[in-house]
Amino acid sequence: MSAPIVHGGGITAAAAAFGGSPEDWLDLSTGINPCPVALPDIPVRVWHRLPDRHLIDEARRAARDHYRSGEILPLPVPGTQSVIQLLPRLVDAGRLVGGTDNRVAVTDDRIAVVSPTYGEYARAFVSAGFAVDAVDDLAAVGAGHRLAVVVNPNNPDGLIWPAETLIALHDRMKAADGLLVVDEAFGDADPALSLASRASQLSNLIIFRSFGKFFGLAGLRLGFAIARSDILTRFEDWLGPWAVSGPALSIAASLLRSDISPIRGRINERCAGLHGALKGAGLQISGGTALFTLVADARADDIYTHLCRHHILVRKFDYAPEWLRFGLTPDPAADRRLGEALQRFER
Amino acid sequence: MSAPIVHGGGITAAAAAFGGSPEDWLDLSTGINPCPVALPDIPVRVWHRLPDRHLIDEARRAARDHYRSGEILPLPVPGTQSVIQLLPRLVDAGRLVGGTDNRVAVTDDRIAVVSPTYGEYARAFVSAGFAVDAVDDLAAVGAGHRLAVVVNPNNPDGLIWPAETLIALHDRMKAADGLLVVDEAFGDADPALSLASRASQLSNLIIFRSFGKFFGLAGLRLGFAIARSDILTRFEDWLGPWAVSGPALSIAASLLRSDISPIRGRINERCAGLHGALKGAGLQISGGTALFTLVADARADDIYTHLCRHHILVRKFDYAPEWLRFGLTPDPAADRRLGEALQRFER
Repeated sequence: MSAPIVHGGGITAAAAAFGGSPEDWLDLSTGINPCPVALPDIPVRVWHRLPDRHLIDEARRAARDHYRSGEILPLPVPGTQSVIQLLPRLVDAGRLVGGTDNRVAVTDDRIAVVSPTYGEYARAFVSAGFAVDAVDDLAAVGAGHRLAVVVNPNNPDGLIWPAETLIALHDRMKAADGLLVVDEAFGDADPALSLASRASQLSNLIIFRSFGKFFGLAGLRLGFAIARSDILTRFEDWLGPWAVSGPALSIAASLLRSDISPIRGRINERCAGLHGALKGAGLQISGGTALFTLVADARADDIYTHLCRHHILVRKFDYAPEWLRFGLTPDPAADRRLGEALQRFER
Repeated sequence: MSAPIVHGGGITAAAAAFGGSPEDWLDLSTGINPCPVALPDIPVRVWHRLPDRHLIDEARRAARDHYRSGEILPLPVPGTQSVIQLLPRLVDAGRLVGGTDNRVAVTDDRIAVVSPTYGEYARAFVSAGFAVDAVDDLAAVGAGHRLAVVVNPNNPDGLIWPAETLIALHDRMKAADGLLVVDEAFGDADPALSLASRASQLSNLIIFRSFGKFFGLAGLRLGFAIARSDILTRFEDWLGPWAVSGPALSIAASLLRSDISPIRGRINERCAGLHGALKGAGLQISGGTALFTLVADARADDIYTHLCRHHILVRKFDYAPEWLRFGLTPDPAADRRLGEALQRFER
């Protein structure tokens, strides 16, 4: 078992090290919308009964219409993490002919992860015994790779790959019988970037979508996978029956059919507030998405510690010591609190 | 992929075949408490944030005190199903020395499942390429079995194995380096039967508990695993971070610390109501637990169809055509509805 990656949300540990009670910290270490959408009514039977086919189908149809995935009914999964962990098994299963699903010999298969990016992809494949190439450009993904991962827009730098570039990569992967995973966890702010509407024509493509980040409901544990039916059937079979909770399905079926423009407007407003605070303190914005902003600064580590002393938690990166990632502030008061703390940092 | 087992909850299919709208059917096909417990308040942050260590630890401590597992902090899992599916991997991992976790050669390992019982155990092991022996007595579990499964009380017959008998089986399994799984999904009505308080002394024992059945909240997807720490750590690692939703953890932390005697009282009252309806119609009760009752009748299949015509769904069993399992009725009116329908059955 490899060591777990430290994810956003380490407020308890930060408060233990720098003081204050966790509730009083300003947590900017995640990429989750800080203004959770109001919950729709959840019928009693949704809590009471096992999630049934009808409820699952309702959520799948709402997701299809929301993500515009055409003929593909997205598969609800208990968070993208759950299917990231199944990718090694999918590659194994694709190689086997006539074997059972989880018993294979060790091979020299390689995986490409366009990097730097979200760390759980490399971790899942390395744990399963695969060799992972962290490549910094799509051109470095070669015929020797059984599967390639692109996070689009990328986390944490916000880099965007145009749809046509990704489709060309898909076609190359497909020609060598490989798979392309495109993680659109931060794709909700700009739906035009999504490959979802092309997925039914791209047989070797797997798209992951996150429900919790955009709607501010990460506690629900819900994401969707969009891919050809035999891949979704494998995921469904491996996750097993009732993998997603009833409340998550019910909330998704409702919110994915609601008007999301106020949510998008609020996120954009919060993003502008965050940018104002960062620029007001003279920081250099080097990337990001609507849900987080990346700052590059030679003294990033000192700024990180300085903010901790003000009980504000952001993300730093072992592999890029000049980077800091700021999640959205929940309101203008938090913008001011962040701005004032940053302005007290002595250069 | 093996064919999915038909579980309780097939009201939609039954209504399609026999008419009526699903809401008007009386669903007695599950083993879930039909009177869901009132939900405690769920703080907004629980919906909003990824389930953090603090929330998970709260639920684990509440489960430890509730199940009396002593030194062992039960591991929350997204339904028992999720860990049933990991058992083949656990057996594989136990056999490997120095290998990676999910890449092994096919072997002739055998698994014992004390049967008839809940079908997902055999299905999970057969899908993973294991040979499964359905044994009808603990004495038939031999040294050749890498893992044995006992559901206690058993589903659907309610058979109970005394703690000392199971401990003796554990000791035999342990002597041959095997594991014993005891599924106590229906163990809440009689906590004295549970091995949880002995688990810290039984190193090769794994206990599964269900949260949703007793509390009537199956939509939550929550169960607990109780075992020695390296086994729980493996499950935790394989399930990955944030496997259980925040609302499920929060509700469990609250309800597992509440006074459950009114729930137990209500279940016993409902069980008495169900028994009255069955006996009043001259049916023979041959087993069961507080949450379901097993009836044996030579015309079980005809009774099943007759009840479907009255829009009442119960469970029948391919392997035991004389059995019918009745879940609890939600109220006295449902007792009367069931009793009247049964009395109209013509012998």
